[in-house]
Amino acid sequence: MIRHIVGAKQFARSELETLFYLADEMEAIERNGGSQLLSGKIMASLFFEPSTRTRFSFESAMCRLGGQVISTENASQFSSAIKGETLEDTIRVISGYADVIVMRHYEVGAAERAAAVAEVPVINAGDGAGEHPTQALLDIYTIRKERGIVDGTSIAMVGDLTYGRTVHSLCFLLANYNDVTIYFVSPPNVPIPGKVKEFLQQKGVRFYENDRLHEVAGKVDVLYQTRIQKERFPNRAEYEKAAGHYTVDYELLDKMNERAIIMHPLPRAGEILPEVDADPRAAYFRQAKNGVYIRMALLAHALGKRDITAIQTAARY
Amino acid sequence: MIRHIVGAKQFARSELETLFYLADEMEAIERNGGSQLLSGKIMASLFFEPSTRTRFSFESAMCRLGGQVISTENASQFSSAIKGETLEDTIRVISGYADVIVMRHYEVGAAERAAAVAEVPVINAGDGAGEHPTQALLDIYTIRKERGIVDGTSIAMVGDLTYGRTVHSLCFLLANYNDVTIYFVSPPNVPIPGKVKEFLQQKGVRFYENDRLHEVAGKVDVLYQTRIQKERFPNRAEYEKAAGHYTVDYELLDKMNERAIIMHPLPRAGEILPEVDADPRAAYFRQAKNGVYIRMALLAHALGKRDITAIQTAARY
Amino acid sequence: MIRHIVGAKQFARSELETLFYLADEMEAIERNGGSQLLSGKIMASLFFEPSTRTRFSFESAMCRLGGQVISTENASQFSSAIKGETLEDTIRVISGYADVIVMRHYEVGAAERAAAVAEVPVINAGDGAGEHPTQALLDIYTIRKERGIVDGTSIAMVGDLTYGRTVHSLCFLLANYNDVTIYFVSPPNVPIPGKVKEFLQQKGVRFYENDRLHEVAGKVDVLYQTRIQKERFPNRAEYEKAAGHYTVDYELLDKMNERAIIMHPLPRAGEILPEVDADPRAAYFRQAKNGVYIRMALLAHALGKRDITAIQTAARY
Repeated sequence: MIRHIVGAKQFARSELETLFYLADEMEAIERNGGSQLLSGKIMASLFFEPSTRTRFSFESAMCRLGGQVISTENASQFSSAIKGETLEDTIRVISGYADVIVMRHYEVGAAERAAAVAEVPVINAGDGAGEHPTQALLDIYTIRKERGIVDGTSIAMVGDLTYGRTVHSLCFLLANYNDVTIYFVSPPNVPIPGKVKEFLQQKGVRFYENDRLHEVAGKVDVLYQTRIQKERFPNRAEYEKAAGHYTVDYELLDKMNERAIIMHPLPRAGEILPEVDADPRAAYFRQAKNGVYIRMALLAHALGKRDITAIQTAARY
Repeated sequence: MIRHIVGAKQFARSELETLFYLADEMEAIERNGGSQLLSGKIMASLFFEPSTRTRFSFESAMCRLGGQVISTENASQFSSAIKGETLEDTIRVISGYADVIVMRHYEVGAAERAAAVAEVPVINAGDGAGEHPTQALLDIYTIRKERGIVDGTSIAMVGDLTYGRTVHSLCFLLANYNDVTIYFVSPPNVPIPGKVKEFLQQKGVRFYENDRLHEVAGKVDVLYQTRIQKERFPNRAEYEKAAGHYTVDYELLDKMNERAIIMHPLPRAGEILPEVDADPRAAYFRQAKNGVYIRMALLAHALGKRDITAIQTAARY
Repeated sequence: MIRHIVGAKQFARSELETLFYLADEMEAIERNGGSQLLSGKIMASLFFEPSTRTRFSFESAMCRLGGQVISTENASQFSSAIKGETLEDTIRVISGYADVIVMRHYEVGAAERAAAVAEVPVINAGDGAGEHPTQALLDIYTIRKERGIVDGTSIAMVGDLTYGRTVHSLCFLLANYNDVTIYFVSPPNVPIPGKVKEFLQQKGVRFYENDRLHEVAGKVDVLYQTRIQKERFPNRAEYEKAAGHYTVDYELLDKMNERAIIMHPLPRAGEILPEVDADPRAAYFRQAKNGVYIRMALLAHALGKRDITAIQTAARY
């Protein structure tokens, strides 16, 4: 059976552990010049809206493992109003061209529709305001790597919690761990949605809503800052109400624990000042780099390379 | 001498047979994980208008044979009004960067102009309302593969027969075979052009024009459905006159022979209902996949790999 | 220490000689089917404005050496007004995805800013009206190859000398050689800038300004023609004043020395007539091809492959 990667909820804790162990191996492989593990395999980057960062991260991962890439940022022409093709038809055709499809789409649920008809694994690289599971995976992986353990983490999620899909996916994944505490810190017009809170309640995850970042900053192991995404707001007035509330600066740094870390899915647009970058707690560029290791692991796994010993042997050096 | 692939008319029957035999080998290679036959070779995808489907098909073919790809969907900037470069200059320069050029252009005759100056083989991936010879090749290859033989085929070509260049190229290729019967089924404002009919007459190919699809459906081995391409019509009124006339659905299926097949160059936009997909006669996704095998064969041939035994030996596994 | 390639001024003569010697080797490698010298290495093509020609030249170079490419012509979305990311952040992230970054940007100084934060080598593929050092390198390499020596060259630079950045970079590089004479031939509204003249004066390079091309043509070893770049002019009136002044045609050819050469960074838009192409002095397509060898040399050098003997050994055949 094909194992698609559609949403964060599909991962059980044991799978996460396997994946992260594989990602650790991938880091070793990458640092040693790559591998030919996926030689002869083709990944299709099928981006219905451009996201060079995410696309590059996946394509770098594929190349590091010796695979090849066919790529488009203009996939929307496939199903353009003019030509009128369904997403399902597109995916059926691309299934014949590639061994794995990495897809970004502007509609919620697109990845699930694609997975339903694809004859090769589909990896969701973001579907509208829906999910972005590989971002959530690299986020958890970063917490594990920086802190040594995910259990027991207290984390503040800051910014636009209504439209920020990375935050939702991260919540779904965190529910796999024990003794997690989440603080939701948002402007009043973009709170965390009820469906996410209900999910956390069902799973027994502790969470609080608190709009005073300076109060929360000192309590957490992880401060997860996000960008207010102008493009997701219905109008300018709503955007301006949400923007500029919370900025990570020297002053906030002072209130944080010595061993806390600051994360951000990037890009940032002023919500973390550049003065913070030099602080060892600024983990966001390390976090971006972890994305390559996680995606190497996901691609290897999707393409049937799951045996760690075999992978170590296949590493080039 | 360089062998460019410009139009369907350039192929003699013996060449088609060689190509299809090569394509059969390519399928075996692809199923066994690819080959390094074209290792060290570079294909330039030079698309003056985007067509992700065709581009992916070629790029997948090149990757399956171990070659590398440099690619653009924005080649029109080369010859933009602002910069004013001629197509000939562009091609001369790209000849220095790649071992084979796959070109899609919006102007009829562009591929021929490119071939006239290129120092490497040029493969026409569609030139405006002109030709799309590799589509026609994969169409014939599909008929041969599905039916076992092309001679004796009776085929209905359905839809916009004026602007549909795949239909024209397919007619040119079919003239190489014996005892072929063609039924042209089109709305009255988009009939098959006189020049195509003249060509068929000269070659002694039987054809009929008949606008009643339900009458024709029961007579043919192949029903070749096409999309009414809105973008090629001079105005909306003409488009609407042509659209929606012919739909392949359960009812039509019932009228068709048990061993007939339904083909479509894709994308489709409603002219074959999804309910038809599950029928074994629905050959259009197999047809799309055959495009990769044909293009692998064309690329190998263009780059001087024509010896079947050598190709079999070079196959990776 | 990372060696970025930001501007033409950074090269000392000894470095140029090493680079050109390496480029000679690269030509031998390319003619023999490429090499695996950069196998396992990834180049990111980060183009904030499209330039298929330059991008293809770099990507072809990388592929010829067995490396892999991740590529975008839409990098401007990274730092779009909406998302508001700084160039510095973008470069920090891409540093984690690739082993070398080739960047084209619309702003003067962008390459220098990128180099300041990158953790991998940055190669400037053009920054606005600033520099385009790899073009200048291939220009000098072409003069050396066509004439055997750069010292003692007399060269006419013709066309828009105000906005033509290739001309500026070329002047900076020529200052490394002895006994060079430059004739600047431009319409009155686009003269060579004062800062370039000051630089040449400081370096002791002889130069003249002369608007009569027919007078200059007979005096030079190299006629370096350029396009009047409409897109760089403040308005249409200024453009039209500059355009159409100087055309290389049969008549001009007659005035030139037997062993002189005509160069052009391409694309051209009428300022060299096609009738000139067949003349052996027309060096511009050979010049374009030299770009691949220079970029192969630059990529190898940037990625630490500098030992000629090792490179010769690594060549595939």
